[in-house]
Formats: sequence, structure tokens, C-alpha cells
Amino acid sequence: MAHKDHADVYRVVHDLFSKIPFNQLLGLEIEDMSDEHARLRFAMRDDLVGNYTRNILHGGVISATLDVTSGLMAFVGVAKRIRSGSLAEKMERFSRLGTIDMRVDYLRPGAGEYFVASARVIRSGNRIAVIYAELHNDSDELVASSTCTYLVG
Amino acid sequence: MAHKDHADVYRVVHDLFSKIPFNQLLGLEIEDMSDEHARLRFAMRDDLVGNYTRNILHGGVISATLDVTSGLMAFVGVAKRIRSGSLAEKMERFSRLGTIDMRVDYLRPGAGEYFVASARVIRSGNRIAVIYAELHNDSDELVASSTCTYLVG
Amino acid sequence: MAHKDHADVYRVVHDLFSKIPFNQLLGLEIEDMSDEHARLRFAMRDDLVGNYTRNILHGGVISATLDVTSGLMAFVGVAKRIRSGSLAEKMERFSRLGTIDMRVDYLRPGAGEYFVASARVIRSGNRIAVIYAELHNDSDELVASSTCTYLVG
Amino acid sequence: MAHKDHADVYRVVHDLFSKIPFNQLLGLEIEDMSDEHARLRFAMRDDLVGNYTRNILHGGVISATLDVTSGLMAFVGVAKRIRSGSLAEKMERFSRLGTIDMRVDYLRPGAGEYFVASARVIRSGNRIAVIYAELHNDSDELVASSTCTYLVG
Repeated sequence: MAHKDHADVYRVVHDLFSKIPFNQLLGLEIEDMSDEHARLRFAMRDDLVGNYTRNILHGGVISATLDVTSGLMAFVGVAKRIRSGSLAEKMERFSRLGTIDMRVDYLRPGAGEYFVASARVIRSGNRIAVIYAELHNDSDELVASSTCTYLVG
Repeated sequence: MAHKDHADVYRVVHDLFSKIPFNQLLGLEIEDMSDEHARLRFAMRDDLVGNYTRNILHGGVISATLDVTSGLMAFVGVAKRIRSGSLAEKMERFSRLGTIDMRVDYLRPGAGEYFVASARVIRSGNRIAVIYAELHNDSDELVASSTCTYLVG
Repeated sequence: MAHKDHADVYRVVHDLFSKIPFNQLLGLEIEDMSDEHARLRFAMRDDLVGNYTRNILHGGVISATLDVTSGLMAFVGVAKRIRSGSLAEKMERFSRLGTIDMRVDYLRPGAGEYFVASARVIRSGNRIAVIYAELHNDSDELVASSTCTYLVG
Repeated sequence: MAHKDHADVYRVVHDLFSKIPFNQLLGLEIEDMSDEHARLRFAMRDDLVGNYTRNILHGGVISATLDVTSGLMAFVGVAKRIRSGSLAEKMERFSRLGTIDMRVDYLRPGAGEYFVASARVIRSGNRIAVIYAELHNDSDELVASSTCTYLVG
């Protein structure tokens, strides 16, 4: 949260994020957030396992986490663009934010005690934002990567 | 479960599926399953909501559900191919099943009291399987579609 | 070209299409076109081969052809929506049409004397259109499929 | 071509590449190639234009170029793994190389006098390789990016 003057925007985003029940269900916590990057973290839990024998993350947890992290990044990107607007304008703009599509590449088995999902902006236009995200395990191995596109205007 | 002679394969798949905690977390239940199709169902719940104002499914729930449904279909596809093999051969083959990648298209807001995810085989080769899946709401509107590729051999 | 009253729109699209040099380079010809479907055809040629030993289509030809067919379908979709507008309005709207992204699945080797690419509308919204396309060979085998998203408004 | 000891492999790849007619049709030339990176270059030409008014690259040229560049990178990756094998083994291995799928993100209009496509290896496994590629114009603007998966074993 390097940008002190934007602290209020981040606080609002942080609050909204932690109130979303599905984020709680997955145990996702925001570790870091700026205008260009976002990083989430979650701990391995028994109910996030997809393959018992190998004790690795369920594919659905991986796709969901990358989806959430990228969505947060797109949300911050929109927040950044409308900093000067009124609250009503901001809310109207947020309500128009929508995910268009997502591609996930599953690169390595999701083994680890905790995982870090990070997202960055590839392209931020007036109407479309493209967000790239990665999931690493506690040994900093790249487990999966994704590209998501969002309608932002 | 039209194929009576394969009932044992389906029963095993069904058992394995319902034991995976993440599937329980999402509330997914198998509604129908054959060698070419699979259909899951789940009810809307407060903790699956992504947008309160509009009361619609979280994007991560959509991607996770399509991932699970397609994975089940790929799993059945592998099971079908190795029907004649020993249990050890089957288990060895299953352990090599892996998701390569997934694309999800988010087409309409996920509003509804329940949702149905269905998958079908686009291409089933010796090494690669391609599975197409759709998520419909209780009004039979197409909420999202996906294409997943799996390494099966 | 079933819709007689839209014949002028199709004629304009047809003319524009055949004037694009890259379409000529690939030898693409429009076989059929309606508000919901588009079908192109092209003949195998030596300079479209990617693998001599097996005499199959170059992957780049496959992706390019699916891209062109889907783009034509999106173009027709926009044309349909703005039928009542003036020429200036139409041109302004066309100029805003843009491809957001594409996914191609390569399913079978592209062997054949000619190929048919067909596209249909999955979702046509005010701002986003999603187009599904397939490439078949002269034995009606599915060589590849794709999903493309377009910004239309 | 930094690796002097692999010069023969690169020379073979280079020869094979330049003999593929579709690569000549697009005017693609290899600028640089190593075990982890590949870079192609091509000049704008009238018959590669998709939009006259704006004089920008045809989308199909973009997808085809990214497809070719990523395929070259996958090819080199396979070559690297089988350096010690006999020619027959190498040829057998190459013949099993196949594109599974591709995602392209179209980020900015393809305007420029020449373009550079570069690819790098994201994941190189025994059976699957994942290649990331980008297309930049002569002002070093990112025009498009892609992720391709290949079956390599």
C-alpha cells in the first residue's frame, strides 16, 4: 500500500473483499495491493484438497483463486481511474465491471502448506482490462497462471 | 446411468466424487453421468454469492464448478477406456490424469436458486481429451461455458 | 442468404470481405452467411502446408481462418443491430468492433483437399459478442474449434 | 545463437523453418533463437492489412504469427531434450510434437512498419510444454500476447 493518498480506496476495496463470503470460504487474505499489483494468500486446508494420495490443491480452488485475484486487480484498476469521481459515480462504474473470460494454465501440482496468488495489469483500456495472474506454492514454484479479461467501461 | 453394464464404474466414480471435500464445500451433486455426458447440480447459497446488490454467483464458483464438471467427464472418459484393465492398471492410469488448461466464458449474470453444470466430450484421444461444459441457471439461461483440456495418457 | 430484406447488408459485407488481401492470400470464400451463422471455404494449397511428411495444414492457417470466420460473424452481428441506422452511424459502429481474445483447440490433423470454417453466435450483448467456430475437412472431421470475444459497442 | 555447441541443432531448425511455405507467405524471419527464447520478425505489407482505414495488421496475421513463433519455441525445446539421440529418434520425437491449444489476447492495434514476435518457455515437462509469446510493433508497443500448449512426448 505504497500510495498513501490512495489509502482510502484500498481500505474500501479491502473491506468489500473480506465481506465476500466465498473469499472467506477459500480463506483468502489480501497481502499486498497497489495500482498495478495485487497479492493474496491462503493456507492449505483439508477441504481444499482435490487428490488425497498426493495431497494437492483441487483444480477448482486454483481456478477460483486466480479468478478472485484477477478480479480484485481489475476492481482496483477501475477504482484508480475514478478516484476523482463522487461515490455514486464510483458505485455506478463498479457495477459495470464484469469478467468476460478467463484462461488458466495448470503447470505443476498444487502441493504446499500455503499459496500466494499475484496479479498484474497487462492492459488497462477505457473499456477492456487484461489481467495476468500466477499462483505459487510455499517453495515459490509456479503452480498455475492465468489471463482474464474484464469489461471496465 | 443408462449403461447398466458399466454401473460399477459409475458407482466408483460417484463415490470418489462425493468424498472430495471441495465438492462438498460447493454443494455439488452428480445428477447424471454417461460415457459422453456428465451433469452436476448445486443450490444457490449465501456464501456462493459474489455480488450482494445483484445476488449473483461469485465468478470463482462458476469457474470452479465448470472445472469440476469437466474433470469428472475426463475421469469417466479414462474409466471407459480402461474398463478391461485390472484395478492397479486403472489406478495407475487415473493418477496420470491431469488438467492442462481451461478457458471460461462468462456469458450472463449467475442469478437463480439452483444451477446445472453439464459437460460433454469434444475430443477423446490417446493422450489428450477436450471437454466442453456449460452452466445454466434454473431458468435454463446459459450463464457460462468452458473448454478444458486434459492429459489422459 | 435466406433473409431477402437484409440482402444489401450481406452484399456490403461480402464486398468488404473479398477486398481484404489477407483473405485472398488464404483463398477464403464466403459460402453462406446469415444473422446467426457464417460459413467459409478454402482449398488446400502447397503454401498452406505446415508438415510436409503428413501434408497437413499449418497451425497458423487454422488459427487465422477461425479468426477470420469469427470476425465476419461478429461483423454481421453488428450490422444486424444497426440496420436502421445511417451509413455514417454504421461505419462509426464498425470502426469500434475489435477482437478481445481467441482460444483455439487443435483437435485433429488438418488433412484434406478443402476445408470449411463455420461460426455461430454464442452470446450477443450490447458491448460483448462471443462467437464459436469450427473447422472441418472434406471428410467432415472436426479439425479445430475456437471461441472468440469481440467488443461490439 | 549463443550456444556454440548447439549450433547444428539451430541450423537444422532454421533450415526447416525457412522451408515452410506459410512462413514465407507471412514473410517471417528468425532473428534470434536459444533454448529458452525465440524471436521472429516480419515487415508490414499491403496484403497483411486487415483494416484499410487504420492500416493495421489483420487479426489472422497476429494469431498466425504467434502460433508460428510459439511452435518454433516448442520445437527447439524438444530438440534440446533429444540432443543426444540419433537422427531417427529425433525425427520420431518431432513427429509427435503437436499443438493442443492457443489463447491470443489482442491488446493494441497492430500499426507499424515491422513487427517482432518473441516466445519463451513457461513450462517444459515430459509430456506438455507451455509457451508464452508476445507481438510488439516497431515502437515496442505490445500488440498481442498468447499462451500455447504443446504435446511434446
